Amino acid sequence: MRDIKKTEFYKPIDGTKMPKFAGIATFMKLPYLEPEDADYVDIGLIGIPWDGGTTYRSGARLAPRQVRDASTFMRNMHNTLKIKPYDLCNCADLGDANINAVNLLESLQWVEDFYHEVLSKDIVPLSVGGDHLVSLPILRALAKDKPVGMVHFDAHTDMFSGFSGNSTFSHGTPFYHAVNEGLIDPKRVVQVGIRGSMYTEEDRLWGLERGVRIIDMEECHELGIDGVLEEIRRVIGNEEAYLSFDIDCLDPAFASGTGTPEIGGFTSIEAQQLVRGLDGVNLIGADLVEISPPYDQSGNTALVGATLLFEILCLLADCKQKRGLTKKSLMEKQNG
Amino acid sequence: MRDIKKTEFYKPIDGTKMPKFAGIATFMKLPYLEPEDADYVDIGLIGIPWDGGTTYRSGARLAPRQVRDASTFMRNMHNTLKIKPYDLCNCADLGDANINAVNLLESLQWVEDFYHEVLSKDIVPLSVGGDHLVSLPILRALAKDKPVGMVHFDAHTDMFSGFSGNSTFSHGTPFYHAVNEGLIDPKRVVQVGIRGSMYTEEDRLWGLERGVRIIDMEECHELGIDGVLEEIRRVIGNEEAYLSFDIDCLDPAFASGTGTPEIGGFTSIEAQQLVRGLDGVNLIGADLVEISPPYDQSGNTALVGATLLFEILCLLADCKQKRGLTKKSLMEKQNG
Amino acid sequence: MRDIKKTEFYKPIDGTKMPKFAGIATFMKLPYLEPEDADYVDIGLIGIPWDGGTTYRSGARLAPRQVRDASTFMRNMHNTLKIKPYDLCNCADLGDANINAVNLLESLQWVEDFYHEVLSKDIVPLSVGGDHLVSLPILRALAKDKPVGMVHFDAHTDMFSGFSGNSTFSHGTPFYHAVNEGLIDPKRVVQVGIRGSMYTEEDRLWGLERGVRIIDMEECHELGIDGVLEEIRRVIGNEEAYLSFDIDCLDPAFASGTGTPEIGGFTSIEAQQLVRGLDGVNLIGADLVEISPPYDQSGNTALVGATLLFEILCLLADCKQKRGLTKKSLMEKQNG
Amino acid sequence: MRDIKKTEFYKPIDGTKMPKFAGIATFMKLPYLEPEDADYVDIGLIGIPWDGGTTYRSGARLAPRQVRDASTFMRNMHNTLKIKPYDLCNCADLGDANINAVNLLESLQWVEDFYHEVLSKDIVPLSVGGDHLVSLPILRALAKDKPVGMVHFDAHTDMFSGFSGNSTFSHGTPFYHAVNEGLIDPKRVVQVGIRGSMYTEEDRLWGLERGVRIIDMEECHELGIDGVLEEIRRVIGNEEAYLSFDIDCLDPAFASGTGTPEIGGFTSIEAQQLVRGLDGVNLIGADLVEISPPYDQSGNTALVGATLLFEILCLLADCKQKRGLTKKSLMEKQNG
Amino acid sequence: MRDIKKTEFYKPIDGTKMPKFAGIATFMKLPYLEPEDADYVDIGLIGIPWDGGTTYRSGARLAPRQVRDASTFMRNMHNTLKIKPYDLCNCADLGDANINAVNLLESLQWVEDFYHEVLSKDIVPLSVGGDHLVSLPILRALAKDKPVGMVHFDAHTDMFSGFSGNSTFSHGTPFYHAVNEGLIDPKRVVQVGIRGSMYTEEDRLWGLERGVRIIDMEECHELGIDGVLEEIRRVIGNEEAYLSFDIDCLDPAFASGTGTPEIGGFTSIEAQQLVRGLDGVNLIGADLVEISPPYDQSGNTALVGATLLFEILCLLADCKQKRGLTKKSLMEKQNG
Amino acid sequence: MRDIKKTEFYKPIDGTKMPKFAGIATFMKLPYLEPEDADYVDIGLIGIPWDGGTTYRSGARLAPRQVRDASTFMRNMHNTLKIKPYDLCNCADLGDANINAVNLLESLQWVEDFYHEVLSKDIVPLSVGGDHLVSLPILRALAKDKPVGMVHFDAHTDMFSGFSGNSTFSHGTPFYHAVNEGLIDPKRVVQVGIRGSMYTEEDRLWGLERGVRIIDMEECHELGIDGVLEEIRRVIGNEEAYLSFDIDCLDPAFASGTGTPEIGGFTSIEAQQLVRGLDGVNLIGADLVEISPPYDQSGNTALVGATLLFEILCLLADCKQKRGLTKKSLMEKQNG
Repeated sequence: MRDIKKTEFYKPIDGTKMPKFAGIATFMKLPYLEPEDADYVDIGLIGIPWDGGTTYRSGARLAPRQVRDASTFMRNMHNTLKIKPYDLCNCADLGDANINAVNLLESLQWVEDFYHEVLSKDIVPLSVGGDHLVSLPILRALAKDKPVGMVHFDAHTDMFSGFSGNSTFSHGTPFYHAVNEGLIDPKRVVQVGIRGSMYTEEDRLWGLERGVRIIDMEECHELGIDGVLEEIRRVIGNEEAYLSFDIDCLDPAFASGTGTPEIGGFTSIEAQQLVRGLDGVNLIGADLVEISPPYDQSGNTALVGATLLFEILCLLADCKQKRGLTKKSLMEKQNG
Repeated sequence: MRDIKKTEFYKPIDGTKMPKFAGIATFMKLPYLEPEDADYVDIGLIGIPWDGGTTYRSGARLAPRQVRDASTFMRNMHNTLKIKPYDLCNCADLGDANINAVNLLESLQWVEDFYHEVLSKDIVPLSVGGDHLVSLPILRALAKDKPVGMVHFDAHTDMFSGFSGNSTFSHGTPFYHAVNEGLIDPKRVVQVGIRGSMYTEEDRLWGLERGVRIIDMEECHELGIDGVLEEIRRVIGNEEAYLSFDIDCLDPAFASGTGTPEIGGFTSIEAQQLVRGLDGVNLIGADLVEISPPYDQSGNTALVGATLLFEILCLLADCKQKRGLTKKSLMEKQNG
Repeated sequence: MRDIKKTEFYKPIDGTKMPKFAGIATFMKLPYLEPEDADYVDIGLIGIPWDGGTTYRSGARLAPRQVRDASTFMRNMHNTLKIKPYDLCNCADLGDANINAVNLLESLQWVEDFYHEVLSKDIVPLSVGGDHLVSLPILRALAKDKPVGMVHFDAHTDMFSGFSGNSTFSHGTPFYHAVNEGLIDPKRVVQVGIRGSMYTEEDRLWGLERGVRIIDMEECHELGIDGVLEEIRRVIGNEEAYLSFDIDCLDPAFASGTGTPEIGGFTSIEAQQLVRGLDGVNLIGADLVEISPPYDQSGNTALVGATLLFEILCLLADCKQKRGLTKKSLMEKQNG
Repeated sequence: MRDIKKTEFYKPIDGTKMPKFAGIATFMKLPYLEPEDADYVDIGLIGIPWDGGTTYRSGARLAPRQVRDASTFMRNMHNTLKIKPYDLCNCADLGDANINAVNLLESLQWVEDFYHEVLSKDIVPLSVGGDHLVSLPILRALAKDKPVGMVHFDAHTDMFSGFSGNSTFSHGTPFYHAVNEGLIDPKRVVQVGIRGSMYTEEDRLWGLERGVRIIDMEECHELGIDGVLEEIRRVIGNEEAYLSFDIDCLDPAFASGTGTPEIGGFTSIEAQQLVRGLDGVNLIGADLVEISPPYDQSGNTALVGATLLFEILCLLADCKQKRGLTKKSLMEKQNG
Repeated sequence: MRDIKKTEFYKPIDGTKMPKFAGIATFMKLPYLEPEDADYVDIGLIGIPWDGGTTYRSGARLAPRQVRDASTFMRNMHNTLKIKPYDLCNCADLGDANINAVNLLESLQWVEDFYHEVLSKDIVPLSVGGDHLVSLPILRALAKDKPVGMVHFDAHTDMFSGFSGNSTFSHGTPFYHAVNEGLIDPKRVVQVGIRGSMYTEEDRLWGLERGVRIIDMEECHELGIDGVLEEIRRVIGNEEAYLSFDIDCLDPAFASGTGTPEIGGFTSIEAQQLVRGLDGVNLIGADLVEISPPYDQSGNTALVGATLLFEILCLLADCKQKRGLTKKSLMEKQNG
Repeated sequence: MRDIKKTEFYKPIDGTKMPKFAGIATFMKLPYLEPEDADYVDIGLIGIPWDGGTTYRSGARLAPRQVRDASTFMRNMHNTLKIKPYDLCNCADLGDANINAVNLLESLQWVEDFYHEVLSKDIVPLSVGGDHLVSLPILRALAKDKPVGMVHFDAHTDMFSGFSGNSTFSHGTPFYHAVNEGLIDPKRVVQVGIRGSMYTEEDRLWGLERGVRIIDMEECHELGIDGVLEEIRRVIGNEEAYLSFDIDCLDPAFASGTGTPEIGGFTSIEAQQLVRGLDGVNLIGADLVEISPPYDQSGNTALVGATLLFEILCLLADCKQKRGLTKKSLMEKQNG
């Protein structure tokens, strides 16, 4: 049995030793640990198989498993940033936060509880949804003490106050609640890639009034990727920030497997450049949401998701290390 | 504008005059009427785009529209029973019962309300789900005065008392509630096609104790289709009964587009024979549930569903006519 | 029964009240009216389920219905132009022009007849094919008095004189006939996005000799979207013009569901920018053709088509209003 | 260059020497010869890429090429009949009869012309459609002197007198014309597998009145495969007969790739048993029609088709040899 | 950390506590253990992601992971046999045997080595291929001391002596070698479901001469399922036997995702009855091979495979227990 | 029989005379000739149905046939270069090089032998793989006398020294061997489009040390297409060069059907511009590899491949003619 007290434990199985398609599908072929066993983990990859907040096409509940499968194709080093995340941090797959597929409020609570446990061990969470509502319980755990900044890639603001009937929680409302609950600081929130036909401008105006910076798709084209990145850094500054990446910020040609697709979005390379360009932003956690496997038989969306997940992991590992001693380095010293 | 006071109004657009693939997709190419305008309707086809009770693979919310599309391929006369439903009854597509995609309890209420309105006009409802939980609000409206019998084709009993956490409503529980609420008479309930691996025998025992007749798949093979039909008629008798047809009673080779597929089910021809064989059962309503379009790219499941829907419509038209004067015949007399 | 004399009638069912995926699939969830009942309609959305002119991969006959389904995802306001079409014009789905699936000449006549009826009520037609041959009978009705200008997005000129054997009508020939019949003024025709390997240059030379402005794909890349738009406006001028949008002007990565795909085409965002940029062109009708559902299992092509349809609808509503009193405004005054 | 005067020329490339998936895709990996070069051919496999007679879902124009691809999986000996067709007859792929994709009448003429040439060389034609209308020009060439008998597997009678408008030719009408034109003797026609909802009984009654034997699906179930075969042999007798096999006689679970699917059809094994059971019927030609590749992404329908094509080829080779000297045996004598 | 010395460890995560689609995908949601840690395991589920022996359509290398995913849908009790495997035996997912994707001989050695380790711990192996060649290294480990009997479900005998060129190892040859190497006793081998067109009869005759009992598909239809089972039991007797289940024994309508499909095969229910009917055969191991995910976009084949895997697991657990003390019972006594 | 001594023989069947989808699928609808009959051929299109060197997702063995099918859509003239390849050179489909699906080393030898025969007739080879390992035996035949330059479009360098275990040949190693065997001159090799996460930098450094010019994707974005082309021409110079085009240099949105997809690649139009821009490079052969049909159900990847194949054919025809007398011109003189 491999020893969880050795840093070797926290690395992927090597794809040159065993084929990428072989073996149990964990995120990046990392070891699987339940949170209770994760004391030595720096960065935890977590699935949230939930889509009960979805108002159009459901299916995101199946994303964590499909992204795990696709992620085993990822290798160990970033090709342009040259970051080797597993040399910087102890990483592990912490499994899925449990949810109740037919009970929205109970699920919100269960997910939040899961993240309280993870965060109690000082683990940086990198999560795969699930629909976008999952960001709310994550933030409830992560920002329970003070509001954080947020870089938000999406076709939609997700700042609606409610949905039909008496429902206030859906995948269109998480950041309305997050602002109201003081989890994110609207003045340090930037939303990138917003587009698509609209019912009203209510959600945009609500955000704008509170200081949210919305860079809609048309402005993205005007600013160019570099300009967008400059603006993001300006808004976020040096303090701690969360990254929420909705796959529907990409064009459906690149990521059709999503619940509320809007044409005219980013290409894959643009998405990669946007993520890579966050180098220097002080990220304390991230999520990748709204991948809906049933709507992409090709699996391309999962591949895009897995690749972005690896790119984000590189950022988080770099940030974590820059913020101070990692458990990995401590472990190496102790084992030294 | 076509005259809703003429019986011609209540017939499909003729596929020899306009191609089957042309025109608005209503059920069977029937006219669309909102319930408030449906005073002259004998049989109303209704969609319920709901899948919030689904515990495995969701997607049934998209079924009503896909089945409408496939149903336009249906013609006007049953090839073996020789029933011509549109010569017997005024038929119409009454649209979809509204639901709240992110609120289970509210949806149950909205659907029930819709059916109260439909039933207040003495319309026989033929419904297309949605997941199997939709049968519960239908029965709450249909059987509010006294319990009915039920012919239930399914791979599962749907008589569980609950699901994970504190949830008691899911697509696995409708008939537990229906029995408890006095909507169906367990002694006049027959469940056909039950199979698949099990967690426990709890649901089966609960039903059996209350008098439900379960003909599981293995017994179906022993009895043969004729034997099963004989047993159904024995259990149901001559009184009013409801038909609930879960598409997963078919084998996934014939109907893969469903949320909880179980191999080893009925073939299409067996399903047709089972439905046709209900001739003589006094049906007052029916539903066809659990078609999940994302899981069948070929559209075959919708075609199977649409064909069975037409077969059921023939049964309902025949029953309605046999129970007494139809609105159609009254209208013809008045117009005569 | 909703009152066709109220402007409220001519608006979509609100997607925040009833989910986008619920209810009968009409274009944009607008009310369905047969042309004979459409006296109060400003803009009519019409399907033409015809692909009998297709020389390669057929299937466009199924497009109107699939685009209807996808179009229910559209909302009410354009996100960049801020146009609210339903506040400007009475809109309705006028169903499909009937066709004879096995008779080309009869179909041309039936479609033309349908448009004569629509136009006799002063309705601006926004049509969804069908293969590109459908533009010919539309123009025969629309331009029966004098030739119009035409903005034509396509990978092909569709100005061939004939096809194999003795056939002169196919989806490669509509504009050869339209020029010859005096329906379009070649000097006010601009074709954008032309590309792909060629048999001969015959079609191009024929058009060029008559004054057609061809901006092939390579020139599009040189001019940029703004340059192309400037050139379009120069050619079309201020007089009335028709817009014909062949989905194959997009790259197959964005719109694979088409009969004669050519790689190297526009992206979705470029297509959107091209349509949006037609603001100021005096459009009196438009069609969207060559979507072939069987060749895109993902439904992305239909989504692209539905989105462009909404964008075009915004243009038409804006033009219609600018040309003078709409029926909607008259109706509001009368009801006022 | 291989010598067309050697019998070795007329055999498939051996799948144990070169993989099945390698090389040009001809029917069965047989040599390709244009009809003008086919003097030594006993049995010619021919494609007819035509679907202009299709009234529902088109696409059969693509079948010949897909069936060629799938047919390269076939081997050389029948597993139960033990027939080795290539040891009995010289076989070749004669390519496709040319058609005009946008001109029905011209296509009928071109196909007939092609078959006149083939038949002038005393070649037994085994054809792959195309929609069912292709049987008409084949029969016009094959039965120009006297009517033949016909074994007809299908879900539909294809004996309608016309379709919408003024069209009398469609894939629903070939055998109405074939009877009227004296190409098939209705008293020696047997139609097997007929089913599906109906507009009217007109087509059935028309056939029955003229002596056609219709064994609809329900009767097939009653008679069993052996009973059906006995009845076929009784009707056809010993004289020459044509075999027309519409793939939609199978259930869509087994062959979804077809234009007018009807559930409740034959399984693959039943279809095989029906074909194998024709041993002893004096077949002089055959066709396999209505495979529509766009509607079966799995390619299963083409595999079913290719397998049945091989089974029919075995029958034809056996019949040809039993009717007297084959060109193959003559060639062997001469070369001997 | 869960304790591997408790029997609770060796059970699946309960699907009523956590949804089936949630969490890491191991076989049946069992714990994952590397073989070196598997001292307490009675039955080990093992993947072999290898398809380098495939002569037609490859892809079976991806099967272990897809079957793991589908298998999480399985529950805990067999619905007809009432066996609860996890109450009888300690079960675990032992991961995949490593292979070299580009080196056939090396892969055969690595797989054999893996099984030697597994068998050294007295674990009953239940394997998921991979193409059928994987049975050879399994048998080399399992039957190294004396030949075993074998129940073999397949469309092909896999008893060819070689393939093209100088290759003697392919997925068509494993049992030729197994007989020659004295791993299986041909007189106690029964092959069920053989069918399809043939190059030669060589493989059949080779087997028959050595005493193999071949029940081809046609004979299966004659004998019926009960007759086949009787014959299997007669051949195998009471001694130890291995079960090798090639998914292509099913008809492609039920399991299209395979490399060498042959139409006319078993239905799912027949396959289930055949497996269930092996009750009483003394099985010491089993494999399920030739599932090829790329050829079944629906995932149905994996579902069929996962269901059969569960059925086989029930058999193995029952046999293991009947053969004497299980580790589970020992562990319970010790912990008792 | 058409006369192979006439230049007309070496042209495609005209798509305006016979539909593109009709007839045997050879590359570009060119005549099929075995190499032994190809004395008059200038450019030979060749398939290599091999994927035994694939380390991730196999399937490229099926590419030659699918690309043949898609290529019949290509016409006769390049739309921007205005090259008419069939007016410059005699072209033919030379079929597939035979391979042994289960024997890597034997396949390398067989493919090399095939190319020796082709090259002995002074034919320029344009090949369709197969995985990238096929370039090695081609180069072994083509560059047996002296090393050639190489333009290499790919996401990967394919310059690894080995794979897992003791295997040195895989689709990741061909150019490591080609350099070592003196087949390509590393100083005249340029690799374009390299990207994706990495295990190590070993392969890059190995190439760089030997003088290979690597333009990774990021640098492509910086240089722009024109800059990349300039750099290619600088590296290659005027001497003979080979073109190796791995379809995975495109983004999966444009070409998902490949074994080792990497997001962030070229668009179709960029790929076309890169190929067109090679005008002036002295190409003596080319291959198009790594198309894997099972991973693109839409067939788009094959369409992209077929289009690029036509573009490359135009380049080769142009080069061949510029290098001196073609067989075509000789033949025309002789026949003149």
